[in-house]
Amino acid sequence: KVDSDRLWETIHSTAKWTDVSRSPSRADDIRTAGLSRLTLSNEDKQVRDWFVQTTESLGCKTFVDQIGNIFAIRPGLSNDDVPATFVGSHLDSQPSGGRFDGVLGVAAGVEMLRVLNDNWIETEGPVGVVNWTNEESAKYPISMMGSGVWADRISLQDAWDARSVHPGSPVTTAKQELEQIGYLGSVPASYKDGIRLGAHFEIHLEQGPKLEIARQAIGVVEGVQAYKWFTVTITGRESHAGTTDFSNRADALYSAATFITMVRDVAKSLGGLATIGMLTVSPSSVNTVPGEVKLSLDIRHPSDEVLDKMVRTIQSESQTLASAATNTAQGRHHLTKITIGMKEDFSSNAVKFSPEAIRCVEQSAAHLLGDETKIRRMTSGAGHDSVCTNMHCPTAMIFIPCKDGVSHNPNEWCEKVDCATGANVLLHSVLRMDKL
Amino acid sequence: KVDSDRLWETIHSTAKWTDVSRSPSRADDIRTAGLSRLTLSNEDKQVRDWFVQTTESLGCKTFVDQIGNIFAIRPGLSNDDVPATFVGSHLDSQPSGGRFDGVLGVAAGVEMLRVLNDNWIETEGPVGVVNWTNEESAKYPISMMGSGVWADRISLQDAWDARSVHPGSPVTTAKQELEQIGYLGSVPASYKDGIRLGAHFEIHLEQGPKLEIARQAIGVVEGVQAYKWFTVTITGRESHAGTTDFSNRADALYSAATFITMVRDVAKSLGGLATIGMLTVSPSSVNTVPGEVKLSLDIRHPSDEVLDKMVRTIQSESQTLASAATNTAQGRHHLTKITIGMKEDFSSNAVKFSPEAIRCVEQSAAHLLGDETKIRRMTSGAGHDSVCTNMHCPTAMIFIPCKDGVSHNPNEWCEKVDCATGANVLLHSVLRMDKL
Ligand SMILES: NC(=O)NCCC(=O)O
Ligand SMILES: NC(=O)NCCC(=O)O
Repeated sequence: KVDSDRLWETIHSTAKWTDVSRSPSRADDIRTAGLSRLTLSNEDKQVRDWFVQTTESLGCKTFVDQIGNIFAIRPGLSNDDVPATFVGSHLDSQPSGGRFDGVLGVAAGVEMLRVLNDNWIETEGPVGVVNWTNEESAKYPISMMGSGVWADRISLQDAWDARSVHPGSPVTTAKQELEQIGYLGSVPASYKDGIRLGAHFEIHLEQGPKLEIARQAIGVVEGVQAYKWFTVTITGRESHAGTTDFSNRADALYSAATFITMVRDVAKSLGGLATIGMLTVSPSSVNTVPGEVKLSLDIRHPSDEVLDKMVRTIQSESQTLASAATNTAQGRHHLTKITIGMKEDFSSNAVKFSPEAIRCVEQSAAHLLGDETKIRRMTSGAGHDSVCTNMHCPTAMIFIPCKDGVSHNPNEWCEKVDCATGANVLLHSVLRMDKL
Repeated sequence: KVDSDRLWETIHSTAKWTDVSRSPSRADDIRTAGLSRLTLSNEDKQVRDWFVQTTESLGCKTFVDQIGNIFAIRPGLSNDDVPATFVGSHLDSQPSGGRFDGVLGVAAGVEMLRVLNDNWIETEGPVGVVNWTNEESAKYPISMMGSGVWADRISLQDAWDARSVHPGSPVTTAKQELEQIGYLGSVPASYKDGIRLGAHFEIHLEQGPKLEIARQAIGVVEGVQAYKWFTVTITGRESHAGTTDFSNRADALYSAATFITMVRDVAKSLGGLATIGMLTVSPSSVNTVPGEVKLSLDIRHPSDEVLDKMVRTIQSESQTLASAATNTAQGRHHLTKITIGMKEDFSSNAVKFSPEAIRCVEQSAAHLLGDETKIRRMTSGAGHDSVCTNMHCPTAMIFIPCKDGVSHNPNEWCEKVDCATGANVLLHSVLRMDKL
């Protein structure tokens, strides 16, 4: 059994490596302080150093790969050629994120190592804990970047070249920052030539309200919905706010507003989700009609086919919007022309986790909880590093409830007892898989 | 008569003091190169130095006041106690502005000095040229800031403390930058205790399409419509883009989109204008539902009363929007609450210029053009420094046509012949006023 207090302490003590400048007023109450630890920041370096020191002190060997993923491996009884059964998640956060998203998974992995050591347990094969780089993609907008490179679904070069987008900070590439914080490793970032994974288990807060509403303790995650990210560029024409009649305007921001309401309508009609999380206006002057807007579009659906349909519908509705916004009256066309372009940045198909790994989770949960009604099979709305590991090794996930279903918010909260229950299921899932 | 080539040369040669990083690709064609010279920037310092050197070499004394307005005064025949008849405008530009907005007015003033000198003309009272600080308000969003401080409608302290808003540049105050570029003068910035104005004439491009469409050469500006600026803050709740159903969201950007379309509807229904030129999203992450949006709102109407009605309508419609966006279903209220707050930053009542000064312009135009059909009485859609000077001295403006009615855009364009015609009307208006 995990030590509930110790796990809780790990989660909250590592939260001191946070950028306090982002939420200073709330920093004294752990229920609302949240966490601001953008990937590859100084705070991320500090928590990485902690991770390496802690896992090494617990008897692991650590390996840093070329994209900064850190693998800590505890030897098993068999020879070293057997790939380890891993627990993994991420220590980076959203700009104003919560204390559990990602951190719970890594902390539960460290807790697993401690329980194994305390109880002199030797596993058949090695077991490990992995901290994946830039899962959040808040700074470098490539989702699940570190695990994606490892899984060979993102090229190392594309990830190295990713440019930071966080407003108010200078633009850097991921490679520059890996070097800067000393985590540009030499191990190939590859499931083939680098660290091999025998299996991957991840515990995470649900980030949605289902478990809480149903008063259930454990979600056995069967898979992850599909999602795609786009950069949308809307161009109009800069003009004077006081002298340009509406009939002479090509207002890129006004068209962006109609685009934003349109995508929500499309998503609703197809039963999916759509979010515009980033938007910048140019030239950004109070008395100038905007000439260009760039925005991010995140769309999701459990079905790949419906997601594709969502893309096609949004694309064609965009063209309708742009034409409707352009005033074609005599001589006005070039003054009022609106264009809308969409560039796909990222795509993740719907994922089904490994039946074998799911079984390990489900049996452990049933065994530990002794009450099937507390357990729910479910699909994840969010992407996780497990999406990438699932391409190359048996993978499954464990969800625990979170308050109000809230995540990506400093108010994100999980109860201590739920963290411990989930961490126990994780520990036992790893041990079951190790036996297999 | 002004020297058309020399005036044209002044306009375009001073455009070399531009921030080329903003529009490098277009820099070789003067018709599309535009001008990027934010107030108090290094480029602004250079053009100010040019202004001081040039007017001094033409026999003026120059004075810099506490907000950086530069007054160049050419003595008249009478004693020095008579306040000068001024030509004024501004040398700052929008981030991607045109070469004529403001610059034409100052260049025509310099050309006036040259014509007076070349022809050994001595005026009764002194005449002058003034370059007002931060007319554009693109960097420090206080409209007509320098002339507003001089007119005592903005306090010196508020103007000094104004914080820069241009994205990608560090935040500075206006006072810091005045010091930095060496234009924090010691003359009181005050119509009472500082440089007094006997009259103020300003030539400007129309920034709208009326003169061009009517093929008229000169607009005699009777006044300026009313306008107000607000900062609007919309708050919702940050949450995860992949796991938060629409019914659980408080999406500040989605509400901003409905706000943007609402204000246009209100403006249209009341015959006014409304523009959102700036908008920032927080926390600005591709997979986080935005928790806060801040945007600028610029609204205009020829009538003060209708403008006030526009404000009240937008305020009440905002509250309706916010309530409609908040899902009050059981337990959802705190998760979906949207608020919309509006803070007024700036207000300029509708202005009627001095009949006496208007008469000087109209008579000069009639005399020089010899064709009344080429002259149009009109109201300005944009604010100008003349709005402020009109509070304390006889003031009028001259408009000339601009291509497609476009301004606040690098494609802003005036024909050479129109600049010269307008500058001649300006010169003669000053001489007429001097006689009065
Ligand atoms: N779990 C999580 O927040 N993942 C980020 C990737 C996503 O946007 O779903
Ligand atoms: N002329 C001009 O562009 N003035 C700026 C003030 C305004 O927004 O009207």
